[in-house]
Amino acid sequence: MASLSTCPPLTRDEVIQARQLIRSHIHLTPVLTNKTLSRMASTPRDPATIGGRTPARPTIRLWFKCENMQRTGAFKARGAFHAIKRLQQEPGWLESGGKEKGVVGHSAGNHAQALALAAAEDGITSRIVMPTTTRPNKIAATKGYGAIVVFSGPGFAGREAVAAEIVAETGARLVPPHDHPDVILGQATAGLEFQEQVLEQQQQQNSIEEGGGRRKGLDAIIAPCSGGGLLSGTALSCEGTGIKVFGAEPEFEGADDGRRGFYSGARITAHNQTPNTVADGLAGAVSATPWGLIYERGLVRGMYAVTEEEILSATRLLLERLKMWVEPSAAVPLAVALYNEEFRGVVEREGGVEGWDLGLVVSGGNVDVDGVVRLFS
Amino acid sequence: MASLSTCPPLTRDEVIQARQLIRSHIHLTPVLTNKTLSRMASTPRDPATIGGRTPARPTIRLWFKCENMQRTGAFKARGAFHAIKRLQQEPGWLESGGKEKGVVGHSAGNHAQALALAAAEDGITSRIVMPTTTRPNKIAATKGYGAIVVFSGPGFAGREAVAAEIVAETGARLVPPHDHPDVILGQATAGLEFQEQVLEQQQQQNSIEEGGGRRKGLDAIIAPCSGGGLLSGTALSCEGTGIKVFGAEPEFEGADDGRRGFYSGARITAHNQTPNTVADGLAGAVSATPWGLIYERGLVRGMYAVTEEEILSATRLLLERLKMWVEPSAAVPLAVALYNEEFRGVVEREGGVEGWDLGLVVSGGNVDVDGVVRLFS
Repeated sequence: MASLSTCPPLTRDEVIQARQLIRSHIHLTPVLTNKTLSRMASTPRDPATIGGRTPARPTIRLWFKCENMQRTGAFKARGAFHAIKRLQQEPGWLESGGKEKGVVGHSAGNHAQALALAAAEDGITSRIVMPTTTRPNKIAATKGYGAIVVFSGPGFAGREAVAAEIVAETGARLVPPHDHPDVILGQATAGLEFQEQVLEQQQQQNSIEEGGGRRKGLDAIIAPCSGGGLLSGTALSCEGTGIKVFGAEPEFEGADDGRRGFYSGARITAHNQTPNTVADGLAGAVSATPWGLIYERGLVRGMYAVTEEEILSATRLLLERLKMWVEPSAAVPLAVALYNEEFRGVVEREGGVEGWDLGLVVSGGNVDVDGVVRLFS
Repeated sequence: MASLSTCPPLTRDEVIQARQLIRSHIHLTPVLTNKTLSRMASTPRDPATIGGRTPARPTIRLWFKCENMQRTGAFKARGAFHAIKRLQQEPGWLESGGKEKGVVGHSAGNHAQALALAAAEDGITSRIVMPTTTRPNKIAATKGYGAIVVFSGPGFAGREAVAAEIVAETGARLVPPHDHPDVILGQATAGLEFQEQVLEQQQQQNSIEEGGGRRKGLDAIIAPCSGGGLLSGTALSCEGTGIKVFGAEPEFEGADDGRRGFYSGARITAHNQTPNTVADGLAGAVSATPWGLIYERGLVRGMYAVTEEEILSATRLLLERLKMWVEPSAAVPLAVALYNEEFRGVVEREGGVEGWDLGLVVSGGNVDVDGVVRLFS
């Protein structure tokens, strides 16, 4: 990881710079719309399913940023490539044998493959610490990208300790999964693309449907939140644009640490036990640098949580209706848009009759067929 | 259906006209590449899995035309919209109350939803004959597009008879699923887009990788074959371009009627019993008009069949690697490219060291989660 002393400030302009740096390495992932899902989001829920309350009546046009189609199957490639590029810009790093000393990361999931790929593409050694409980297909994929895989015990602390040992022994640089400005700036590039792509598509629609109301970009974006890299990056990419950014989490077994911290005014720094949610990519706790953007700088407007059933239902809709292969974590923003009455009330009040163009970040698609069979059997 | 006497000739120029006619109603579906799958296709198979033979050594760059992202989830929307547009151009049809008399179709699958949607968008009554054994979600979707659903017994002949009765009683026009020039010209528009999109993407790649070999469009396309509308249309869209077109079928329980007819010189007109293949969209027999293009006009170069295991394996790869939600029928072309040694031998011989840019038509994504769970449990 590039030294913090050389890190650029966390601003939208720096997100634009980050995009230039990684552009040739990542996919410009598609942005999709879907009439059926937008109609569902704009339909009031049955009062019987929400405890007899009067349902919210939002008008929502959904847009999906398909990061499941990103290289390595998740947005994580953005942060990893940016961290690797920035590291190579650090004075003296290359000359002191940086490529050979390499980088080290710890991850049971998408960060592992992303870092392995980004390092390999620039000829840099990578070591990835993975818990012994990691699914074999993820281990194989990480090795397939050329990484040296080192095993640790299951917990987050154990992984960090093993990674620290490797750093001490080899002089490798640690690339953390979310708690670093370079990683956040990389993840933020998805939000930047999203804004531009929606504008372009709206302009095409406007030129077709002349006389119709002209729409001007997104009104809001919901991004999933675990360590907070994607959410804080998305919020940074929207700073000063007027686009409101919201975070989405599973509520199961306290996985909504971000939401609870957000409304209590203090970050919850760790889980006593990893929540066993179907949205396994969102089981982590928000880390410090993302929190600074999300809460302290006030770039995120609100945080919402959804149940396991709501996540599975939204996952099913993305599979069957959007025709996209997604992991359950990627469906959590859609679950908020469809099922969270509090959020839907905000859209109704603020969007009014015109409603909102609401962007959802579909964060990844790294689940295997057996995993989907287990989820829905 | 427009009267055959007013049908345009089956030429590539007419495909271009068809595209203009339906352009505003259909999606320009994405064309994707995938390094992992292209590498797999370019890797010789293990001799142990192919009876100890010497494996073919083709070089293949795969391109995927994602018709699972088409409206109603399958390419069938193209043929249905084109048939509906052409019908409205028929002299006297509108004046004689055509819209009210409407159209009738028979289908247990993707044609039902496609015709219902196409008719509804132009305010035309539609009646769809569906076997009582049709899955409830498909019946609901068809009704959801505004069609009147009429039930028949399970066989193809029974459906045709019920549809004929409706025609006699109501004066509705029959829109058959494949055996009509207007339907074929509609399906053919996918091939036209495919050719253009690959050229565009190659040009972008060429401008990035200067000095590299310049590639010029697709060398070949594989399309799945059931009634033959998509395969014959794809072949028509390639006529005179030099692009070779191949058909792909399941071999299970004789579902490879197209292949067997192709190499024996006579169309197999019907199955004694519907083959119970996992690629349920490909269980039908090739009908007369498609056959005229596929075989008699010689527009298709070859037909290949694959096993149930190979289809499931290719389906898994499209889900996990391409991140696309597809029905098994849509994976049959990939199964040919990966597992059919005969086809792979052709690519090796004709493509040589340079290899082929090979297009695969991913025909549809209308399977529900429960269906996928059943397939892979």
